[in-house]
Amino acid sequence: MERTEISELGEFGLIQRMTRELNHQQPSTLRGVGDDAAVIDPMGKRFVVSTDMLCEGVHFDLSYVPLKHLGYKSVVVNLSDICAMNATPTQVVVGLGLSNRFSVEAVDELYEGIRLACEVYKVDLVGGDTTSSPSGLTLSVTAMGLAEPDALVGRDGSGDDDLLVVSGDLGAAYMGLQILEREKTVFQAAPTAQPELEDFAYLLERQLKPEARVDVVREMAELGLKPTSMIDISDGLSSEIMHLGTSSGVGFKVYEDKLPIDPKVYDTAREFNLDPTLCMLSGGEDYELLFTVKQDDYEKVRNHPKLSVIGHAVAAPDAFTLVTKNGPEVPLQAQGWDGLKGSAESGS
Amino acid sequence: MERTEISELGEFGLIQRMTRELNHQQPSTLRGVGDDAAVIDPMGKRFVVSTDMLCEGVHFDLSYVPLKHLGYKSVVVNLSDICAMNATPTQVVVGLGLSNRFSVEAVDELYEGIRLACEVYKVDLVGGDTTSSPSGLTLSVTAMGLAEPDALVGRDGSGDDDLLVVSGDLGAAYMGLQILEREKTVFQAAPTAQPELEDFAYLLERQLKPEARVDVVREMAELGLKPTSMIDISDGLSSEIMHLGTSSGVGFKVYEDKLPIDPKVYDTAREFNLDPTLCMLSGGEDYELLFTVKQDDYEKVRNHPKLSVIGHAVAAPDAFTLVTKNGPEVPLQAQGWDGLKGSAESGS
Repeated sequence: MERTEISELGEFGLIQRMTRELNHQQPSTLRGVGDDAAVIDPMGKRFVVSTDMLCEGVHFDLSYVPLKHLGYKSVVVNLSDICAMNATPTQVVVGLGLSNRFSVEAVDELYEGIRLACEVYKVDLVGGDTTSSPSGLTLSVTAMGLAEPDALVGRDGSGDDDLLVVSGDLGAAYMGLQILEREKTVFQAAPTAQPELEDFAYLLERQLKPEARVDVVREMAELGLKPTSMIDISDGLSSEIMHLGTSSGVGFKVYEDKLPIDPKVYDTAREFNLDPTLCMLSGGEDYELLFTVKQDDYEKVRNHPKLSVIGHAVAAPDAFTLVTKNGPEVPLQAQGWDGLKGSAESGS
Repeated sequence: MERTEISELGEFGLIQRMTRELNHQQPSTLRGVGDDAAVIDPMGKRFVVSTDMLCEGVHFDLSYVPLKHLGYKSVVVNLSDICAMNATPTQVVVGLGLSNRFSVEAVDELYEGIRLACEVYKVDLVGGDTTSSPSGLTLSVTAMGLAEPDALVGRDGSGDDDLLVVSGDLGAAYMGLQILEREKTVFQAAPTAQPELEDFAYLLERQLKPEARVDVVREMAELGLKPTSMIDISDGLSSEIMHLGTSSGVGFKVYEDKLPIDPKVYDTAREFNLDPTLCMLSGGEDYELLFTVKQDDYEKVRNHPKLSVIGHAVAAPDAFTLVTKNGPEVPLQAQGWDGLKGSAESGS
């Protein structure tokens, strides 16, 4: 494969290459890449903005994450934050720190993913900064979005007995990561071994190519359904439930048997000797929407194919409990990844 | 000095500490840190956005840049981009990648600079992302600003015989860097030597604590003076002149004897055996505004204490020349730092 050094193109050549054929799709984008700043006309709406930084060796491992997927995911995780405000993502700016390990072809691949995400979500890439870094790859994405003033949803609006709802299913991205880590170990031990990944397509896609739930935001608007509070699931369901509760001044009761899981996630968790419920509660990176709705809206959500009612708010702040399948009610714990692995190792 | 590990506070503790006492000053800021995204209401104005990434070892050297100054500068260089659109900076979001070399106290110091810049410029810090990085410090700042729709100025509006104007003076930040590098060398050779920096206060301030010319943007508005094209000087005067020319489809003729220089810059350049003109043309990091105005506006700029007319546009695209003090007209060259050092070493 061809390798062109970035120094051959120079900074401006590289920027030109990265931003070629950038077509704007958002009417609010008046001016994009190529000036000191982009210009956006919100036309009477509210403007929302969110930023995320991803560092090689912390947030991704390039030994099993293709650059194109990384580019796609770095945009999507930011769009997910915009969705969590009940807003529509409209623009992104991308900062890129590159060590000289990366060639122009590598940047092309990364940008292919970034552009693909922009196309899929009809957001405009309107600016960026590309610079050299002493080591590794750092990606910083800032996403912007628009909403009607009365459509915005924060984390702080849940009432005492609102229903707790989640979109999609949970735990798949975490199990996808387990598969990738297992294959990396196998590869390191026997580099000629063929990876067995086909069976796990759904899990891998959820890990490598997550999607932001713009569809859920749109469908809720069509249903006339406005959440009272909302957050996206990046760290893990338990931890996000606690964020919603703490911000809103309520507690939550969650029912284990209502948690949505894909059969493949369940089977793979068992194969890895992991507790499927723990994977759903603490796995993270699902980028699903977690929100509360008023009891009166139950009919709008109960049979919605993309939504599951998993619990309800309680008038006791900081009381977060899980009603287990076996009956007993246990405190919900916001375990991070370390906690999850620790638990997993001790069996379940 | 006390050293608290970041792991002692945890991610949320650190965020809480960084964002305590954040008061909003901009009426357009409806919601800041603490939700999935910030919410901004532009109230009928145009919204502008710009991003910059700064990596340790590339953009700054912590052996002579205090963290507080780094925080301040990282915000200011972004505000400067907003000014270059003839807009008023209003909000910033900050992404931070930290290796475990950095303590909580170090982050406090960095944030002290970030908050100070926000206070001085009355911009609101409305969001961010703080994460660990495998090595060094990475800062990513995205700045936003507002302008009346008809006030915005791009790089592309210069007419064939517009006047070329620059704010402030040039070359000081570059000479400040030379001083810091010399002192670092001295310190490495003799760690007990007292640095001789007092004489160079202006140069050091221009390097370590640059300012964005919001004052110039405001005063031009008060004068009813709207530039036809504008850019801020980050890379160096020559290179920015070429950006304006290329974007506008004109050339520029620049007069060496009109370039504004502080006497201290001139003297220090001589002391370092550097050509003062080359320092002004290629030094960079001045964060002054470079812009064009119509000939009819000459009276508004000619005696303005903060502005210098340094040349004019010519109807020949890509013709960029410098009329030297001795008379001959030479091609203007967009030398980067390497070029400057090379030239300097070959004497002048």
